[in-house]
Amino acid sequence: MTTAFFAPPDAFRGRRVVLPDDEAQHASKVLRTGPGDEIVVVDGAGGWHTVRLDHVSTSQVVGTVVETRRDVGEPAVHVTVGVGLVKSRNRFETFVEKAVELGVRRIVPLHTARTEKTSIRPDRTRNVMVAAMKQCGRSRLPSLASPTAFDALLDDWTGAFSPEEEDASDDATLAVICHEAIDGGASLAKTVRASAGVKRVLVLVGPEGGFTSDEIDAATNAGVRPVSLGARRLRAETAAILAPGLVLAWADGVPPRDSAA
Amino acid sequence: MTTAFFAPPDAFRGRRVVLPDDEAQHASKVLRTGPGDEIVVVDGAGGWHTVRLDHVSTSQVVGTVVETRRDVGEPAVHVTVGVGLVKSRNRFETFVEKAVELGVRRIVPLHTARTEKTSIRPDRTRNVMVAAMKQCGRSRLPSLASPTAFDALLDDWTGAFSPEEEDASDDATLAVICHEAIDGGASLAKTVRASAGVKRVLVLVGPEGGFTSDEIDAATNAGVRPVSLGARRLRAETAAILAPGLVLAWADGVPPRDSAA
Repeated sequence: MTTAFFAPPDAFRGRRVVLPDDEAQHASKVLRTGPGDEIVVVDGAGGWHTVRLDHVSTSQVVGTVVETRRDVGEPAVHVTVGVGLVKSRNRFETFVEKAVELGVRRIVPLHTARTEKTSIRPDRTRNVMVAAMKQCGRSRLPSLASPTAFDALLDDWTGAFSPEEEDASDDATLAVICHEAIDGGASLAKTVRASAGVKRVLVLVGPEGGFTSDEIDAATNAGVRPVSLGARRLRAETAAILAPGLVLAWADGVPPRDSAA
Repeated sequence: MTTAFFAPPDAFRGRRVVLPDDEAQHASKVLRTGPGDEIVVVDGAGGWHTVRLDHVSTSQVVGTVVETRRDVGEPAVHVTVGVGLVKSRNRFETFVEKAVELGVRRIVPLHTARTEKTSIRPDRTRNVMVAAMKQCGRSRLPSLASPTAFDALLDDWTGAFSPEEEDASDDATLAVICHEAIDGGASLAKTVRASAGVKRVLVLVGPEGGFTSDEIDAATNAGVRPVSLGARRLRAETAAILAPGLVLAWADGVPPRDSAA
């Protein structure tokens, strides 16, 4: 797979694309591309463009789109992860990078009863997301919500799916909240397996210390299913990596005709 | 779940246990335990001991085992991960921490055609493993092999399972090698689902750049099944986290009576 470059949709004018400064520098100085070379440029909105370079200098790289494919590297299932703000920036960024690689479409940092951190650094987080998108061969840049109160997300959890999606009917949607298996809740693996045909999945993962029992109750009342990730107590970011990983591996790996309820 | 302390088997004499120095400091200075308090001490060999403290000072903590349970927090399936040595120590340690949390029993760093790094720091890696074991509520410390040549592992891959296990018959064993889905190989999710009753799983993951096609061929000839982790190109440590995560989630989450071939 070719190394991909990123240029947002507004860098395109018809078939002409002007790479953003940092990408232009990378193309010209590091990869030493020249006029006539073909590169892949993803626009983060599902466009995967083969671009023939017309002009290359350290300050500007301009090319012409010769072919466009849609949604290369994108999974069939739309997964949103709502995750309690974890204290360590490194651990949060590890989660973000892995979530992008695994195919997550939207990340919602959550304020919950046990979160101690209140903010993220959106620019820095977005850089991690762009790098991961390019590296893993996706064509969509997942969206990153502002930190959101857990209650607000529950009040309207279909809102966690990205606004451009309109076919968010309830029967195509699954929402789960991960918690320690104190009372023998269903496993996420089993729940996902029993949810063949689901198009959108919301996965909620707590911060260090997990969700409170009040939060689990509130989620259950809102139609979110409590699930267990196994017998061990996972760190917040581990759970937030494993849970969408399970959902997406299952969705990508087993076509609907093959699934069993 | 209580915070657990670690004391290796040789710290126990009959029912008496003397905590190692660093654990003693943590118990006395940080958690301010005192005589009569009960703590959990795991021995890393499957023992989960409830210990009543008899003597507590900053230099020494001594207690008496009042109850022992076996294999608390341990999965039913024995998973070994062989992973190409990744360049970044941080990324390798992220993998190691997550592997322990997820329930992996043995880690084998591999020299492969595309590895650039030749060594790990065993003491530092072991510290990460001990911390993760205590944090996640396991009672076994996974074993860490010395860096091993890929060919040597293939030559005798049942040897990757830990030596104390004797029931390593072939039909209870599954070995998979993860590679990019160039030729539509089976997904790991599907392969695991079709392998109900397996007791031991060997998961092979390449370094940056993956395995060479020669290595995939050699593995296939040795009875190892090539599997895909989906449509995106995962970083080495992401693949090395997701793959055992899938295997263990499936094994823990779906009892044999419920599985479908």
